[in-house]
Amino acid sequence: MSKLLIVGTVAFDAIETPFGKTDKILGGAATYIGLAASNFNIPSAIVSVVGNDFPEAYLKMLEDRNIDISAIEIVPDGKTFFWSGKYHNDMNSRDTLETQLNVLENFNPVVPEGYKDAEVVMLGNLHPLVQLSVLEQMTEKPKLVVLDTMNFWMDVALEDLKKVIAKVDVITINDEEARQLSGEYSLVKAARVIAEMGPKYVVIKKGEHGALLFHEDQAFFAPALPLEEVFDPTGAGDTFAGGFSGYIARTEDVSFENMKNAIVHGSNLASFCVEKFGTERMEGLAKEEVQKRLQRFKELTQFEIELS
Amino acid sequence: MSKLLIVGTVAFDAIETPFGKTDKILGGAATYIGLAASNFNIPSAIVSVVGNDFPEAYLKMLEDRNIDISAIEIVPDGKTFFWSGKYHNDMNSRDTLETQLNVLENFNPVVPEGYKDAEVVMLGNLHPLVQLSVLEQMTEKPKLVVLDTMNFWMDVALEDLKKVIAKVDVITINDEEARQLSGEYSLVKAARVIAEMGPKYVVIKKGEHGALLFHEDQAFFAPALPLEEVFDPTGAGDTFAGGFSGYIARTEDVSFENMKNAIVHGSNLASFCVEKFGTERMEGLAKEEVQKRLQRFKELTQFEIELS
Repeated sequence: MSKLLIVGTVAFDAIETPFGKTDKILGGAATYIGLAASNFNIPSAIVSVVGNDFPEAYLKMLEDRNIDISAIEIVPDGKTFFWSGKYHNDMNSRDTLETQLNVLENFNPVVPEGYKDAEVVMLGNLHPLVQLSVLEQMTEKPKLVVLDTMNFWMDVALEDLKKVIAKVDVITINDEEARQLSGEYSLVKAARVIAEMGPKYVVIKKGEHGALLFHEDQAFFAPALPLEEVFDPTGAGDTFAGGFSGYIARTEDVSFENMKNAIVHGSNLASFCVEKFGTERMEGLAKEEVQKRLQRFKELTQFEIELS
Repeated sequence: MSKLLIVGTVAFDAIETPFGKTDKILGGAATYIGLAASNFNIPSAIVSVVGNDFPEAYLKMLEDRNIDISAIEIVPDGKTFFWSGKYHNDMNSRDTLETQLNVLENFNPVVPEGYKDAEVVMLGNLHPLVQLSVLEQMTEKPKLVVLDTMNFWMDVALEDLKKVIAKVDVITINDEEARQLSGEYSLVKAARVIAEMGPKYVVIKKGEHGALLFHEDQAFFAPALPLEEVFDPTGAGDTFAGGFSGYIARTEDVSFENMKNAIVHGSNLASFCVEKFGTERMEGLAKEEVQKRLQRFKELTQFEIELS
């Protein structure tokens, strides 16, 4: 079992979907990553920042899942990062209604002493310089560094982003972002271009259409579980990344074959995340449900063809 | 080994994609279905109609693949059905530039005597009344009837379409069409509504995003093989249906587990179809290539997770 170091936002979200809307609720990339990874009972820590408006109960909830929260800085006179967004009917596109950076504007991440030798590092979506700073604080070279990012950083901080991309083993990115970053429409070609920037493993997330893992000439695909309804897609990508990195930390096996399993675990956990608003479904997740749905995942994808 | 009866268009297509354009080339649903199914070395026959402008060489090419062409009527003073279309950059949407029904306008399908007891019937995309007429000519109840259709018939002949849907075992339909036919956005719900119309098995084709098979509470998913380039998507859906029905005819096994394999074979064959213009790739397909790509398909989708 390895230690998992997570950096990313811990935040407030206000979400509107065709099924309803929320007030300010718990959100943030690191929150979703941490909750997903906690299913593998690994030691993990979150590096993040919140304001004095952030409820202690949220921190307690993370702590109860054995997530080390000592490196979530609380800025006494600061306000927590806030995002609000509205999803369209197809749930695959959304408009950002408001973004308040607040305490994120001057965030200097500090990796806790006990995690400077973490074997697995999950760099959640944040400014690439913050992600870089975390990597630079590691005293041991991690066994696996996973990066999640988004188009926003390609638009405003591409050179910094390229610096961090050059230093990671795995990048997770959605299809449109992969096209933007690579300049290639074909995802096979896009993955090859991105791999040349540094990451030996490229994961392209396609939302409801599943996720692809590329490594050299190999590819693996996991679908999203077909659901009656996608209630709220917020955090699905982060949950996927948390499931992926948590499983790798649990198994300590960075082979391509084991990454296939990590992708499946990530997809499986993400299928729960979207069933309720915000983190609600992930907070109440039972081990038996996860196992049962993994079984459905197998039935959905596994077949028996004898090759002659 | 069962007999496969195919009804559908045998036609001329003129295709424009971002990679180039063609003059009038061989096309038609039954053509693609027949070529795909011929990979399983089963006895098959096509029921269709062409004009006197249709090259004998095309018919000969089908005959060389052991497809019975005696029920492809040649109208002496008629012109062959013609379709031309232009694909957009994303290859998932296209505009129809021209449709000339020609000999299709007064087509009365005649099932050849030797195929009135065919165990598998593949109703390719055509007017639902033509599809119904074929079913009514069967002297034995087929083991499996597969229906392919499209939104055009939902727009202009919905009641006739519903009559044929009520009589088939499997329907193959794309995602947008499934939504239109069912009035449900969620594909899980759409499949349930469509199953209530008759077909016990509902296949929803999602183009480059793969295909889903639904049956009662079970689901199976096969991705499209990630390709460097999709050169021309024309006929991919028909090739998928031909691979599916051809494999069922070959194996004579209509269980859900075997249909999973049929879906995989259909997806596998469709991945070749889109690599060249029109039928070119399917005409030159070697058994070894098909097997090799099936192996890639397994590597792409199969994983080993032990469930506790």
